[in-house]
Amino acid sequence: MTPASQLDATFTALADPTRRAILARLALGEASVTELAQPFAMSQPAISKHLKMLERAGLISRGRDAQRRPCRLEAQPLAEANDWLERYRQLWEANFQRLDALLDEMKAQAKAVTDKNQGKNQGE
Amino acid sequence: MTPASQLDATFTALADPTRRAILARLALGEASVTELAQPFAMSQPAISKHLKMLERAGLISRGRDAQRRPCRLEAQPLAEANDWLERYRQLWEANFQRLDALLDEMKAQAKAVTDKNQGKNQGE
Repeated sequence: MTPASQLDATFTALADPTRRAILARLALGEASVTELAQPFAMSQPAISKHLKMLERAGLISRGRDAQRRPCRLEAQPLAEANDWLERYRQLWEANFQRLDALLDEMKAQAKAVTDKNQGKNQGE
Repeated sequence: MTPASQLDATFTALADPTRRAILARLALGEASVTELAQPFAMSQPAISKHLKMLERAGLISRGRDAQRRPCRLEAQPLAEANDWLERYRQLWEANFQRLDALLDEMKAQAKAVTDKNQGKNQGE
């Protein structure tokens, strides 16, 4: 896969809450299809379909044990997706800083109003 | 949108090289549809379709200027997608460490072989 088509496959695989939940489970360790299907109100074939997509995207691999074929998370494509997003960190951090500055300004204004009112009350 | 459906929309939007390139261009500043279409071998309607999807996912917003309607990047959903991926950082960093250890071991073995051969040559 080219880097671009790997990113396409990774982001497509991540665009589903069941597949994200499967990855979250596998982050804790290997699991069989039966174990993975348990927390979901889903049939094993439905889970198997998600697993096939995750496997094609290289996000999981399957063990050789013919009976269990345990699934395991492969983190490398997640690292590459993270690298892509990291390029935009500056932008969202700039937004947070602007928001922080705005909140500070609002707090200062609220304090000024309170102080002014207290001054009035003490003057009365 | 719930946090889960926002992640679905964000990852779906990112799963396409043209949409990722549009975001990369917008990271440099606002741009009109005409400006965005230029570097791509794509019609303006095709680009507009991608922009609509990015807008629905909240990854871009459009200006009010009726003529240009400049597009601008909205980084917040990217920050949330990044947060989701960050949970797996430990896993891929552990993999990198294992790979580093393996490379160190291979280098040490290669050095041992070289040293041994040099010792032989000197003995001849």
